[in-house]
Amino acid sequence: MRAAVLSGGGIIVRDDLPEPVPGPGQVLVQVKACGICGSDLHFAKHGADMLALGQQMEGVPRPDREPIDLSRDIFMGHEFAGEVLEAGPNTEAPPAGTAVTSFPVLLRPDGAVDPIVYSNHVYGGYGERLLLSAPLLLPVPNGLSTDLAALTEPMAVGLHAVNRSRIEQTEKAVVLGCGPVGLAVIGALKMRGVTSIIAADYSPARRALAEGLGATDVVDPREETAWARAGAAGPLVVFEAIGVPGVLDEILRYAPAQSRAVVVGVCMNADTVNPYFGISKELSVQFVLGYTPEELAASLRSIAEGDIDVAPLVTARVGLDEVPWAFEALGNPEEHCKIIVEP
Amino acid sequence: MRAAVLSGGGIIVRDDLPEPVPGPGQVLVQVKACGICGSDLHFAKHGADMLALGQQMEGVPRPDREPIDLSRDIFMGHEFAGEVLEAGPNTEAPPAGTAVTSFPVLLRPDGAVDPIVYSNHVYGGYGERLLLSAPLLLPVPNGLSTDLAALTEPMAVGLHAVNRSRIEQTEKAVVLGCGPVGLAVIGALKMRGVTSIIAADYSPARRALAEGLGATDVVDPREETAWARAGAAGPLVVFEAIGVPGVLDEILRYAPAQSRAVVVGVCMNADTVNPYFGISKELSVQFVLGYTPEELAASLRSIAEGDIDVAPLVTARVGLDEVPWAFEALGNPEEHCKIIVEP
Repeated sequence: MRAAVLSGGGIIVRDDLPEPVPGPGQVLVQVKACGICGSDLHFAKHGADMLALGQQMEGVPRPDREPIDLSRDIFMGHEFAGEVLEAGPNTEAPPAGTAVTSFPVLLRPDGAVDPIVYSNHVYGGYGERLLLSAPLLLPVPNGLSTDLAALTEPMAVGLHAVNRSRIEQTEKAVVLGCGPVGLAVIGALKMRGVTSIIAADYSPARRALAEGLGATDVVDPREETAWARAGAAGPLVVFEAIGVPGVLDEILRYAPAQSRAVVVGVCMNADTVNPYFGISKELSVQFVLGYTPEELAASLRSIAEGDIDVAPLVTARVGLDEVPWAFEALGNPEEHCKIIVEP
Repeated sequence: MRAAVLSGGGIIVRDDLPEPVPGPGQVLVQVKACGICGSDLHFAKHGADMLALGQQMEGVPRPDREPIDLSRDIFMGHEFAGEVLEAGPNTEAPPAGTAVTSFPVLLRPDGAVDPIVYSNHVYGGYGERLLLSAPLLLPVPNGLSTDLAALTEPMAVGLHAVNRSRIEQTEKAVVLGCGPVGLAVIGALKMRGVTSIIAADYSPARRALAEGLGATDVVDPREETAWARAGAAGPLVVFEAIGVPGVLDEILRYAPAQSRAVVVGVCMNADTVNPYFGISKELSVQFVLGYTPEELAASLRSIAEGDIDVAPLVTARVGLDEVPWAFEALGNPEEHCKIIVEP
């Protein structure tokens, strides 16, 4: 089988991978589309740092499986949609040809749960075929094309962040960063009925996408900050969707008193903050990650029903051979937003 | 009039200050007791840094008054209780001799509001007499002594932090730091009916006070961390009551997934955090400051009704001449917790 894999810090294409074979409860799926996520770019460049940071942390269950070995091939791609090929033994599943996506974990016959995100042995969406779990399959409704169904996952990240913010329709939202995560947040805010959505990004292309998804104000921070545009509006609900050092302290420094920040951008570096700003203004910071299965299903529904138009986010469609190029190209925010791999 | 003032970075006693004269809406009060707050110690040492940091921050109304001039005398002392001497013109107030405390702001006849905390011109509690605002006076009930009534303010800080945490009785609380702020948090948690309160402090004396106020577990972090004591308890509600760099990142690193942190210790320094820990575990951080007038009144009531025993917190009572000594002595957590100035 063919797949683009991470190998020695770069993306290469393998032609001779073993075919995946569905076990009980599993389904073999032909991948039709898989979005490239910023976290995959980051893992490709800084995988060792990310794994080391994870090791320093407590308070999460340590999964009972071998750690990821960066010296071997790593399979990635968690924003996938495809078509059912066949079900494993004694497995109820939608008929062959059904378009599906899924919460990105693979349930194994022995009860173990493997995330489909970075793995030495579980295939992801940057390959011709992968295994999914029958109980987690979400059939794609309304004849939605699989390349747009592949946007279900990143849109669910935004929906989750907005749900966790508990923002009311009358509150003012500020979204810092209009990459795919910030855009997903904007779409979810619009669907929730929030009437004031200020979005900030240096890129004109991304600001245009933000307006398309529902931002009521867009600003170029070189010319006007989101804080200035919000004016003396009272507390804001601020979404950090940039994920680089310095943004958190900017929020603490400039956000109005009693504002709530939701951190959905994934900053992998140590960062410097002044707690004094947060204390003086009684700010709060909610870090968020991922989404629930219900949010993933709601995200798919809202795309399929046309409540949110994700088509403009897709700036390129590539085959497996072009995945190495796509990982490079995504570095330019003016050029690309979401690149879809069609294996 | 006599008062201990901050002058050139040190505390000195002035004998020749002008007598305060109550204007309309104001009341002249004889100070009977005033607690020394850790923030006063910090301001005495790092006042210039604190003022500079405040200048860098936006999102709070800029008060329409002259900035504090560190080269002149500064009056401090916001944890006061006293007795009414006389009311200003056309001012309804409790009769002379009534024991009172107050929300620490002075309403001026022209409508301006001056905090009673650090000021070149508004007297605080480290002097013989000060002005308070008639509408804000809280008469001390139940014959409670004024030196314990002076604990109303620091206890209100803990009550506010616990209220903002929205902790449920069945949730587990961790309190990092058992200085006056941490102890106030512990007392408020106990009154709220929280049944598991783990408190951490290096000082045996402070751990003993924590147990007295209602901590169900105390740990010496040199021997066992609060995280280890909590075990695999699920999400915690963590109160940061230390206020030094590094604590916030310790919380992000070790707190269980979905924990909520409440930052009530005032860290004045820039601090380094790893957002990745917070993101991976969906933690939240609520910064808090001060209290509402209602919380101040509730704090006084709970002390006067014996719901919380604050007497053990008082480790010394000093006159004005000993205030310079007291500022030094509070550096040793084994020796002192709350020192009350009796002018």
